[in-house]
Amino acid sequence: MNEIPEFSQSFRETLDTLLMWRRDVRRFRDTPVDNADIGEILDAACLSPSVGNSQPWRFVAVDDPVRRQAIEDDFGTANSQALQSYDGDRAKLYASLKLAGLREAPVHLAVFCNEDTSSGDGLGRRTMPEMLQYSAVIAVHTLWLAARARGLGVGWVSILQPENVKRILDVPDPWRLIAYLCIGYPREEHIDPELVRHGWQDADPAARSVLKR
Amino acid sequence: MNEIPEFSQSFRETLDTLLMWRRDVRRFRDTPVDNADIGEILDAACLSPSVGNSQPWRFVAVDDPVRRQAIEDDFGTANSQALQSYDGDRAKLYASLKLAGLREAPVHLAVFCNEDTSSGDGLGRRTMPEMLQYSAVIAVHTLWLAARARGLGVGWVSILQPENVKRILDVPDPWRLIAYLCIGYPREEHIDPELVRHGWQDADPAARSVLKR
Repeated sequence: MNEIPEFSQSFRETLDTLLMWRRDVRRFRDTPVDNADIGEILDAACLSPSVGNSQPWRFVAVDDPVRRQAIEDDFGTANSQALQSYDGDRAKLYASLKLAGLREAPVHLAVFCNEDTSSGDGLGRRTMPEMLQYSAVIAVHTLWLAARARGLGVGWVSILQPENVKRILDVPDPWRLIAYLCIGYPREEHIDPELVRHGWQDADPAARSVLKR
Repeated sequence: MNEIPEFSQSFRETLDTLLMWRRDVRRFRDTPVDNADIGEILDAACLSPSVGNSQPWRFVAVDDPVRRQAIEDDFGTANSQALQSYDGDRAKLYASLKLAGLREAPVHLAVFCNEDTSSGDGLGRRTMPEMLQYSAVIAVHTLWLAARARGLGVGWVSILQPENVKRILDVPDPWRLIAYLCIGYPREEHIDPELVRHGWQDADPAARSVLKR
């Protein structure tokens, strides 16, 4: 276990495959998800790096149908408001996109950042206080990869009003919403992002360019 | 390539090993890093999820010794100021920690978020505008994992003043500093975080608990 690992070319290729097929999933089967799998992906998330080793991520499993419905309603409101910011063909395209799988997903998991944690004792976040939230973001990404490696799809729903989500889920006040996640077995699998496939946003060459300084 | 992949138990175990040995590295060998490896880890980073497929991450390779020295000086200033916020034994411990490998690291890579990008057309960030920065954060994490899978260590330096870094690197004004990364072959490899090993911050049980709602 404590022997320094070397990673093979074959592992790197499979890791690339995992990154390529990770995807944001919005179409779920109703197949239930084993609790043990959820436990494993939470264990993986806890291996994430964090500023000052502060580990500020906090997980909330949302099972109550009343709370789930309230989240879905909040998504509906936020999504309608978002639609109003587009015109013409763009509005038509926006309206046709499936942007969340809240109703179908067997597992709802919200991830917060405890902005009041004393862990880490402030190290590394004096000039960049946002590092605390960034640490919780990385935990979401680790969880996502671990889920996909188990055949599970994850969809990150950001079309929600964070203060409403906090109220609906009745979490401590210093917790900031980082991500509301839908988790389950995907109904379809794709190597290309849904937003590329449906003509919303293609690859941006500026993203891969490197400025030399 | 487009056949839906299934990931094996053996891959999952190696992925766990990768997550466990990822680490924030502050002690680098002077062995140069092959440009092809840097290219591969940037390719991997570009596979990251992003809100509305906005791909807002922007990379800056910092080679100029004058700029590198200015970054190191900024770290020195920010780190001295941080030290003043601790007292007694805690201050002594803070002062003894090695918190960056700026001088030794063969590669300096800064990652920014282009807050002015039109890519993604605002989708998914009306109620959570911070999603744009979170997308760039995930690109950093993807790069980190891809680097470790190639035997490379990454250290994320956040003890810097972002406005100074922007000035030193002369980047477009709408770019926000997300991470200043040191990259190279590690001088030591550890499975436990440096801050655990040196007694700064141990595992926090609150991080793995799950609130039921």
